[in-house]
Amino acid sequence: MDIKALAEAHPDHWSKACAIRALTLDAIRAANSGHSGMPMGMADVATVLFEKHLKFDAKAPNWPDRDRFILSAGHGSMLIYSLLYLTGYEQVTLDQIKNFRQMGALTAGHPENFLLDGVETTTGPLGQGIANSVGFAMAEEIQRAHYGKKAVDHYTYVIAGDGCLMEGVSQESIGLAGKHELSKLVVFWDNNGITIDGTVELSDKTDQVARFKASGWHVQEIDGHNPVEIDEAIIAAKKSKKPSMIACKTHIALGSSAQDTSKGHGALTDDKLIADAKAGYGWTAGEFEIPADIKSAWEAIGSRGAEERAEWEKRFATLPGNKQREFERAYAGEAHKKLSATIKALKKKVSEEAPKVATRKSSEMVLDVINPIMTETVGGSADLTGSNNTKTADLGVFDPENRGGRYVYYGIREHGMAAAMNGMALHGGIRPYGGTFMCFTDYARGAMRLSALMQVPVTYVMTHDSIGLGEDGPTHQPVEHLAMLRATPNTMVFRPADTVETAEAWELALTSTKTPSVLALSRQGLPTVRTEHKTKNLVAQGGYVLADAEGKRQAIIMASGSEVEIALKARDLLQAEGIGARVVSMPCWELFAQQEESYRKRVLPGGPVRVAVEAGVRFGWDQWLLGERGREVKAGFVGMQGFGASAPAGELYEKFGITAEAVAEKVKSLL
Amino acid sequence: MDIKALAEAHPDHWSKACAIRALTLDAIRAANSGHSGMPMGMADVATVLFEKHLKFDAKAPNWPDRDRFILSAGHGSMLIYSLLYLTGYEQVTLDQIKNFRQMGALTAGHPENFLLDGVETTTGPLGQGIANSVGFAMAEEIQRAHYGKKAVDHYTYVIAGDGCLMEGVSQESIGLAGKHELSKLVVFWDNNGITIDGTVELSDKTDQVARFKASGWHVQEIDGHNPVEIDEAIIAAKKSKKPSMIACKTHIALGSSAQDTSKGHGALTDDKLIADAKAGYGWTAGEFEIPADIKSAWEAIGSRGAEERAEWEKRFATLPGNKQREFERAYAGEAHKKLSATIKALKKKVSEEAPKVATRKSSEMVLDVINPIMTETVGGSADLTGSNNTKTADLGVFDPENRGGRYVYYGIREHGMAAAMNGMALHGGIRPYGGTFMCFTDYARGAMRLSALMQVPVTYVMTHDSIGLGEDGPTHQPVEHLAMLRATPNTMVFRPADTVETAEAWELALTSTKTPSVLALSRQGLPTVRTEHKTKNLVAQGGYVLADAEGKRQAIIMASGSEVEIALKARDLLQAEGIGARVVSMPCWELFAQQEESYRKRVLPGGPVRVAVEAGVRFGWDQWLLGERGREVKAGFVGMQGFGASAPAGELYEKFGITAEAVAEKVKSLL
Repeated sequence: MDIKALAEAHPDHWSKACAIRALTLDAIRAANSGHSGMPMGMADVATVLFEKHLKFDAKAPNWPDRDRFILSAGHGSMLIYSLLYLTGYEQVTLDQIKNFRQMGALTAGHPENFLLDGVETTTGPLGQGIANSVGFAMAEEIQRAHYGKKAVDHYTYVIAGDGCLMEGVSQESIGLAGKHELSKLVVFWDNNGITIDGTVELSDKTDQVARFKASGWHVQEIDGHNPVEIDEAIIAAKKSKKPSMIACKTHIALGSSAQDTSKGHGALTDDKLIADAKAGYGWTAGEFEIPADIKSAWEAIGSRGAEERAEWEKRFATLPGNKQREFERAYAGEAHKKLSATIKALKKKVSEEAPKVATRKSSEMVLDVINPIMTETVGGSADLTGSNNTKTADLGVFDPENRGGRYVYYGIREHGMAAAMNGMALHGGIRPYGGTFMCFTDYARGAMRLSALMQVPVTYVMTHDSIGLGEDGPTHQPVEHLAMLRATPNTMVFRPADTVETAEAWELALTSTKTPSVLALSRQGLPTVRTEHKTKNLVAQGGYVLADAEGKRQAIIMASGSEVEIALKARDLLQAEGIGARVVSMPCWELFAQQEESYRKRVLPGGPVRVAVEAGVRFGWDQWLLGERGREVKAGFVGMQGFGASAPAGELYEKFGITAEAVAEKVKSLL
Repeated sequence: MDIKALAEAHPDHWSKACAIRALTLDAIRAANSGHSGMPMGMADVATVLFEKHLKFDAKAPNWPDRDRFILSAGHGSMLIYSLLYLTGYEQVTLDQIKNFRQMGALTAGHPENFLLDGVETTTGPLGQGIANSVGFAMAEEIQRAHYGKKAVDHYTYVIAGDGCLMEGVSQESIGLAGKHELSKLVVFWDNNGITIDGTVELSDKTDQVARFKASGWHVQEIDGHNPVEIDEAIIAAKKSKKPSMIACKTHIALGSSAQDTSKGHGALTDDKLIADAKAGYGWTAGEFEIPADIKSAWEAIGSRGAEERAEWEKRFATLPGNKQREFERAYAGEAHKKLSATIKALKKKVSEEAPKVATRKSSEMVLDVINPIMTETVGGSADLTGSNNTKTADLGVFDPENRGGRYVYYGIREHGMAAAMNGMALHGGIRPYGGTFMCFTDYARGAMRLSALMQVPVTYVMTHDSIGLGEDGPTHQPVEHLAMLRATPNTMVFRPADTVETAEAWELALTSTKTPSVLALSRQGLPTVRTEHKTKNLVAQGGYVLADAEGKRQAIIMASGSEVEIALKARDLLQAEGIGARVVSMPCWELFAQQEESYRKRVLPGGPVRVAVEAGVRFGWDQWLLGERGREVKAGFVGMQGFGASAPAGELYEKFGITAEAVAEKVKSLL
């Protein structure tokens, strides 16, 4: 690579790009860890993008109509930290750069949206950024259709590496973006030919250009170090009616002795290597020092969007007042003021009518009344719409011909769906939910963990939540998934027992601001167990006494979801024999754990035998069976010991011994 | 579709194919559930494949050199059950067909390898079959190189649907197969244009032909109902030097009133629809009845391979005796007889030398001595070779130029890697292991669950197993993953504390025949805690007393992996204050749970305070903290409450309070 020629051809560009490279080298040497090669290789692309195209205002990082910049190759975090520092984002001081990857610094190893403005999404797990970006771009389309171009009109830019493109989730996202002609999505592929193990060719020979074209993308190939080519490609990409991929041929760790090697991917900390690289760049400033002229050129870029923002504010003020309030409410993540009353009215109705329906159907009943008032909801399913019951009549289908449609046919792409939902929520103004069979949580897991870490209130509608799905058999029957999800920090797992609990769970999901929710819903019909209307949201307590013991309380039976019916029948059997038994419904462990100890002790007092029944594994239940009690331990569990089987649902419950009789027997054996 | 013309043009073919269609319709009507459309659409392809190409012998279904047939679109299970019944596989009687999807039947909702010969892999979760098939084809290449064409020379055929191709894992697998030029892999794409939600175009417009070509595949497009075209395409595919994809344009639910609709995807049970479809086929036989001439034509196909198998047996007998024994041992899944002694020798050495190394390095030390004697191991990593320490010097790299190489650069494809490993293990003769960061278990989860369900002894080398990975931060730090994996049935989760325990864990993984193993290994250096050599494999007991209390035992400290060092230090602190404390190492909960109760009670006697320390969430620990004891509950946990952070590892342990001092304090607070 002829560094000198680059520097001489575009000196202003060069000095700005080398500021990124110098900061990267210095910060990674100080941290003694990190990834030098990507920021050094992609500095030119990022510089042109920020200088000439990205619509942003460093002093107002959360301006809703800003362009979104997503660093999918999140290990190159010093690229974005450099950009945020150089352009003048308040949070990213030089001290933050100096403390890269250190305790308490906002400049974490990988970019984390919950730490820093300007970091739109948390990346590092490869492929997630590009997959999120599809959600960002869909959110922009949907909101532009709803509020008009005056309020919403921006691009989503992504830098993705070879790793992002090798991850399967990228294919799901590329397909989704191509189908939906997301023309305001622009992906830069950092085509440096290097992975950690060596050259990309060691593991892949895919023609990425052909691959993106096959899914309907506009594709260009450029020299990723030539600022003119970069600029022209971005101009063409913005004009395209399709999503755009710009294949940027780059040199990883440009200008260092580790250039074009897998060593260059990692932390370059050798003093001589760093000194030589800087000398090659013509960079003479000291460590962590950015010459004043270069810094002020970058700061001018950072304030370039201030005027545009002011104009946007004026335009926004011309929207009808109700539209402005709707927009602001949705961006603030506040539920519609009618939500609570709507939920209460539904609860009252179903308490009286006491339908026997599957909770996946209950969920649809809730969505039927919620979607018309919560215009920010965007629903969807990974090709199981009729099974997940996620589509209500008023939503309309999102499509190139109907940008205002609020229902997405995600296709058979659970991971891509989850990641797109994360992107929509992070974009702001949208509250996404999406469904699949609960067992296929496994496919979406990479993005679901990030929902929790990133604190985005997306809702997963996971139906067919046990052996109750019947004949499809063990590949489709979750047994460990409740435990998996409950073990995940900052995730609310709701397993409602009937329509009333489902409505309460949805209310909590729709009012959550920092926590994703998982609704575990039954395939099979369930009776209404909450037949006495209460305005209070009992699911908000996580667990509560559904039916108390008559006479002396000798046992407590805990259950969730479809097994609450079984617990109630077991109680009947026990009471008929004079054994007082309380039934505690436990729709959400996380919320129960958050209650005051005194409440928990009232619900689960010490002393009596405790038995839990759930059509999943015992794993985790001991917390409630054995914990928080002062006396002798007598506890049992009725549930699954291993994988399920293929047969009609009712027979499976018998086969695996999850019956009222088995629960009653378990209680009696412990008394 | 002109059914009549098809029938008239190829009457013999037609009647055989319609036998599949008729059985499908009858079985699904009887079950009142299932998926009719795919078997009806792909019956022609399957008939030609089985009649003219597939090398198999229905009477010897496990003949090692048979061709493998994989139904990736597993919901179309009646296709394979029909084929197995018609060709005369002993297990699949007509009664089994009649009991499709019923309790106890081998003809489960989706094909399950552990129930039926002829079902090579369990499918249903979409994309898994095609992803497994890459492992099957790699196994064939590796073994052909090792044993020669005389012993190993067969094809892998796959039927995949639109769903399989939309799942991201398919892209990982297509890329891997293309890179490795797996020319003996042939994939039929059931291009019927229909998914559950409607037409494929609702969610995807990808040009699949271009997509496969982009990854280096040989691609043909044919009419999937024309037996001549099918035959010619298979002939061409077998000749190709690349993996082959045959795009078969088909009509889902061919010949029924639900043809070409999403209704046709599901269970067609309407009497009139079925009667009309059969009439259209010219099928006049009764329910579940196959005319004798058609059945015997199919049975002739089933025995077509008997001669070839006899020839193979003769050829195999000409191999050198040691090769024959090696082949048979590897196919039986038996470890090499030197394994035990080799592990013992390593344990003795490291007990004496007591190195301080990360357990990921310990794992490499084990592989260094194991790989030379266990020639059936095939290692790899999802682009983290140098971090996972999975590559030993003797393996050689698997590549089109080196088919005997036993190390696979899987690229950034955790899910594809896991699914390929499943395929290799299912193929037989290979014992695969592969590595990534433990946090990226999330990406591989879809295939890891199937390892457990399918009972394949693959080994997952999951390094960087806690906040101990340091600066990469919470996106890379598992906290809930131990719980997730421990909650999964039939999965052994090993978290060894030092090199000795790592060697013992590997011995158990390598001798397992029906259970996958996960090795959770540290990034950071750990002292040798097992400095007294014992020939007995203590990890086999799951948990054991590592250091007993001196004086009166007042506390038991349980720990796994990197926290065993902390537990031992806490014990020292307590003993110094005269508090007798026992340390129990718990490297494998599953094995501990399998021990006799009397053993468990000796290790964890009632009475004393119990504290567990692990750099993960508490979820699940209550089983050991609170369970299996007769007296008052006084227990505590030192570990993670939520996600980690980005900082040097040592500082993170301090920040999150996972220290010897904290453990000792916890014990004292409970006393």
